[in-house]
Amino acid sequence: MSNDNHHPTTLPSMFDRYGDYVQDALRSNLDLHGLAVYDLLRYYMGWADEDGAPIAAMTGKAVRPTLCLFGCEAVGGSVKLAIPAAVALEFIHNFSLVHDDIQDEDVTRHNRKTLWAVWGKPKALVAGNVLRVVADIALHALEGEGLEPKRSLTAVGLLTESYLEMIEGQYLDLSYEGRPDISMDDYLRMISRKTGALLRCSLNLGAAVGTDDQETIAAIRECGRALGYVFQIRDDVLGVWGEEEITGKPVGADIRRKKNSYPVVYTMEAATDQDRDYISSIYLKPELDEEDVDSVLTIMEKVGVREHAQTEASKWADSGMQSIAALELSHQHREQIEEFTHFLLVRDR
Amino acid sequence: MSNDNHHPTTLPSMFDRYGDYVQDALRSNLDLHGLAVYDLLRYYMGWADEDGAPIAAMTGKAVRPTLCLFGCEAVGGSVKLAIPAAVALEFIHNFSLVHDDIQDEDVTRHNRKTLWAVWGKPKALVAGNVLRVVADIALHALEGEGLEPKRSLTAVGLLTESYLEMIEGQYLDLSYEGRPDISMDDYLRMISRKTGALLRCSLNLGAAVGTDDQETIAAIRECGRALGYVFQIRDDVLGVWGEEEITGKPVGADIRRKKNSYPVVYTMEAATDQDRDYISSIYLKPELDEEDVDSVLTIMEKVGVREHAQTEASKWADSGMQSIAALELSHQHREQIEEFTHFLLVRDR
Repeated sequence: MSNDNHHPTTLPSMFDRYGDYVQDALRSNLDLHGLAVYDLLRYYMGWADEDGAPIAAMTGKAVRPTLCLFGCEAVGGSVKLAIPAAVALEFIHNFSLVHDDIQDEDVTRHNRKTLWAVWGKPKALVAGNVLRVVADIALHALEGEGLEPKRSLTAVGLLTESYLEMIEGQYLDLSYEGRPDISMDDYLRMISRKTGALLRCSLNLGAAVGTDDQETIAAIRECGRALGYVFQIRDDVLGVWGEEEITGKPVGADIRRKKNSYPVVYTMEAATDQDRDYISSIYLKPELDEEDVDSVLTIMEKVGVREHAQTEASKWADSGMQSIAALELSHQHREQIEEFTHFLLVRDR
Repeated sequence: MSNDNHHPTTLPSMFDRYGDYVQDALRSNLDLHGLAVYDLLRYYMGWADEDGAPIAAMTGKAVRPTLCLFGCEAVGGSVKLAIPAAVALEFIHNFSLVHDDIQDEDVTRHNRKTLWAVWGKPKALVAGNVLRVVADIALHALEGEGLEPKRSLTAVGLLTESYLEMIEGQYLDLSYEGRPDISMDDYLRMISRKTGALLRCSLNLGAAVGTDDQETIAAIRECGRALGYVFQIRDDVLGVWGEEEITGKPVGADIRRKKNSYPVVYTMEAATDQDRDYISSIYLKPELDEEDVDSVLTIMEKVGVREHAQTEASKWADSGMQSIAALELSHQHREQIEEFTHFLLVRDR
């Protein structure tokens, strides 16, 4: 799949198709029990300010719910049936972000203060846990929507397994910190869990709600697995070379944070011994300055990691499309998933 | 129910009856995917040392699984069927402890270092989340044990609802910190969630696995609700007056930590204006010294809160036994639950 798009990226039509369903359903699921903790969550979802007052929504892209509803409809299911699963996926994704912010001590996300930065770590930790349970409760509504118990249980099982993988991936990521010996295999294993699991599950869950045909579900799942790699590799590229006014992070941000992301892992494998030792020595410093970041960027340029990463992402994109080539999708659905895959490859935020 | 037992408390026979089932099942559920994070969890469960080496188990009482298996058997169900639910309850309980330790920055629990004290907060946070998912996976085995899908889904729903309540209770507890205006009603609402929900769910879940009779389940649930109060009120008494060599905490520990537990909440309601103002002024200090703690203990003695708390706990114990008075339990099961209730009332750890 080509990646020579240099226009600013716009959201694929898939988001138009499912966006309203998702936003309505998210809101109606986050209004339980009238407790103060839900104000924190509405703030985090972008629907309220720090005092709990409603604001013009600054909502995320909702990639996972969109993929889930698409997956269901693409295999012939009714979108309505998959909404509880879509909602659960988005809440679980946000739960993981709330806890990630605490772990990384990040004070902003999407240009807003993170939960812990406003309310402190203990309350943010608990609020994250609440969001996680709200996800489970939302998923439990699958049966209420008329899905048979057996298929509902399958869905619960799929989601559970995938966020266990997600959390295991977070743990692996933490255990890689400060280690200069992380191989590309280690890295790929980690991201296939940390971000891959939930993205894969999004398509998989939608398909499993929409059909009983195991071959179709497996093909959609494989596609989701491939798109997980596309998503994360592009994310890692943006983490180093993303434009500040779009991503909200300065160029070289992930280098400054010494994150073991794709660019540095590849560079450590492909660089000369001398360059590798140099990066290792820089990464031993407690804090990196501009000059350090620039030196690493120069070595990255030398090994051509940015182009290499895009090529790898393209391969995964092709592989994802290959997985579903034999499926009988409508023309419209095939176009939607191809457009979406291309978007993952060239997105600038 | 009388509370004049001054002998050291021994565990009720219910624990002998179900203890082995519980320990075996817990272990076989905590050995997934061969990742390092499971070493942390085995350490926390008391089965391994900090290096992951097996140790002679220092396991907890497993109150919740025991109640769950009892609840199932008491209503005529097979213990085996309820084991996945019992395991899930214990893991969820421990998940909440792992996160509580982080929130409260407690460095020891049961005379061992807490997870975050050994591995740092980020890893401990994630390990707690893993434990929470392991619980869900364990529960998912209900269906594998031959329980029909409909009843399995009911069980999943019950557990989900109850740990949402538990987490909401944790949030309430956090939001009460440093507030001198918490009423007894506020306090009771908080503990009915924070500790009550999971204890109530333990009996409820066992019964719901063991029978379809809704009246029986409701009666058992009510009993669980009452026992939750007995448990927590006694816990709060021990938090102030427990003996250091038994509880691991010095007398007055919860006063020193300015916890809004039963003794202080009651005292603030029952004390003279002068005494109340005095306690308020002490609680405004960043740190309390021995003399402060002694002054608060003296006022607590004046209002007789210790006796009052035990009387309240006794009333709840009676109410719990009343809830199940009409049920057709075997002589043995009735004896077991009475003995257990008495234990909650007089336990010294």
